[in-house]
Amino acid sequence: MSDVNSRASGPVRRSRDVPLLVERARAGDPRAVARLITLVESGDEVLPQVAAALAPYAGQAQVVGLTGSPGVGKSTTTNELVRALRARGHRVGVLAIDPSSPFTGGAILGDRVRMQDHATDPGVYIRSMSSRGHLGGLSAATPQAVRVLEGAGCDVVLVETVGVGQAEVEVASLADTTLVLLAPGMGDAIQAVKAGILEIADVFVVNKADRDGADATVRDIQGMIALGERGPGEWRPQVVRAIAARAEGIDDIAAAIDKHRDWLERHGELRRRREARAAAEIEAIALGALRARIGSLRDGTQLPTLAAKVAEGAIDPYAAADDLLTQLAT
Amino acid sequence: MSDVNSRASGPVRRSRDVPLLVERARAGDPRAVARLITLVESGDEVLPQVAAALAPYAGQAQVVGLTGSPGVGKSTTTNELVRALRARGHRVGVLAIDPSSPFTGGAILGDRVRMQDHATDPGVYIRSMSSRGHLGGLSAATPQAVRVLEGAGCDVVLVETVGVGQAEVEVASLADTTLVLLAPGMGDAIQAVKAGILEIADVFVVNKADRDGADATVRDIQGMIALGERGPGEWRPQVVRAIAARAEGIDDIAAAIDKHRDWLERHGELRRRREARAAAEIEAIALGALRARIGSLRDGTQLPTLAAKVAEGAIDPYAAADDLLTQLAT
Repeated sequence: MSDVNSRASGPVRRSRDVPLLVERARAGDPRAVARLITLVESGDEVLPQVAAALAPYAGQAQVVGLTGSPGVGKSTTTNELVRALRARGHRVGVLAIDPSSPFTGGAILGDRVRMQDHATDPGVYIRSMSSRGHLGGLSAATPQAVRVLEGAGCDVVLVETVGVGQAEVEVASLADTTLVLLAPGMGDAIQAVKAGILEIADVFVVNKADRDGADATVRDIQGMIALGERGPGEWRPQVVRAIAARAEGIDDIAAAIDKHRDWLERHGELRRRREARAAAEIEAIALGALRARIGSLRDGTQLPTLAAKVAEGAIDPYAAADDLLTQLAT
Repeated sequence: MSDVNSRASGPVRRSRDVPLLVERARAGDPRAVARLITLVESGDEVLPQVAAALAPYAGQAQVVGLTGSPGVGKSTTTNELVRALRARGHRVGVLAIDPSSPFTGGAILGDRVRMQDHATDPGVYIRSMSSRGHLGGLSAATPQAVRVLEGAGCDVVLVETVGVGQAEVEVASLADTTLVLLAPGMGDAIQAVKAGILEIADVFVVNKADRDGADATVRDIQGMIALGERGPGEWRPQVVRAIAARAEGIDDIAAAIDKHRDWLERHGELRRRREARAAAEIEAIALGALRARIGSLRDGTQLPTLAAKVAEGAIDPYAAADDLLTQLAT
């Protein structure tokens, strides 16, 4: 494993260094990969340049989302899945999105101890990313981080998130294939329906399948899947049993992922999902740019002048906003 | 009290009806006030027109924010405060912002039973508003709803929110004067420091002051206030004891509000706060308009074309966003 969590020292010497960094990442240098993800995560000003350099490698990897409640065995499953994918000769990237407190901005989770298994494997990149209070827990930088790993030659990128409602929906919008992990006796099946997980899961993994209640959980999920209406040719979510802690069922998970990938390609769905994802990413970047432009007006005289007029009742805030947008466009 | 929660029947006949509605609200018709707040809350297309008609009445009322943890006695305190303000001859508006589930959009709280005390008083308007999942619990429509109540002749508008971190900060940004309610034995003093409440509270109310631990709570708060650095002429938060359920200490709260209002005016702070508030409101409206414009591109060919290029690696998403913004401006 290349632990790309280490923040390489010294500032990037801006534009001159980006092509070199990308070249080194392409050659498999984990420090260059780490540096690029740090640049992406920090929203550094060279970000558009990094994105431009990485653009040709978009779509090189299958992006697999992995989500589920705390304690369901996500890290263990990810670890074993990495092992299985390596055995098939894949280069693998892992992005573990940590939920962070909105008050401190710091990551709460960071325990990747089990990942030490891959510590000597140069074909695996692992990175924890903070969700930085971004709604739903998926870092806004995640799509670009995926692209860094694609540039570094990963065939599969696993994106692991704690599942809490909105997060599952976000990981699904980012992933080609979404795995939802459940465990017996956690009431997850009902929670899944409530949180709309049924709509986004491509593969359900019932982990800890040696526990009491595993059959009931599988049955519940199967029942819910049967209730869902789907047209001919539509994907029917797979249900896989696993005991990740004993490395059991991992090949079945990998097989389900492959099967879904085949389906995506045969039905033109891979292209459709990736274009929708790109559209969302473009929109988010465009909105961020507009927000920054409006924010920059705070230091000027235009916004304060308009605000004073609104405060004294001379104009209304909608007219003021129109005025502001007109000034922004000129 | 005029219960302006009732949604008047029938659609507004658009632009023609707005001036008439505002005229009737100005004359004190509670149904017209209710209708205008509904228009504001629903984001109706006549909203800019409503805002334009109400603009001249901006700043007519003192806006008092009232926040605190559940169970601290917010509704009881609001109720008694309304009574005290009425006794002074003020017209009073109350906006109770209800937290709502992000999944259903429905209001969880809605129990305004105690407000029945004012049911026969035409000088009081009371309205519950949903926070509609808006981050922090303050409805995006609240500033305009305040303006409706100002237009209806209210001298004081009380904005009541459940205090959960971000909400306090939002209510403070909306209010001229912010009251933070605490109760003994709830560990609120420490929570207050954690959540940054100390910075936003103009007046602390220690409610249920007959309970054990009230002295300790007052002492804790006083101690924290003493630690805060403030320059000469800066406002020092007041601490008031109350037992709202027995109507005790209410005049002291009203006196503290008056004192803060005097300070605001003497130091030019009222004008400064209101201009900052107007600036934030203008920014939010402008950003909303831009978001809508970008969203409208989803139905066109521009965004899908760019998304396809990004997905196939021909361009990067930053370049695509630039392109999109250029097209938006033309």
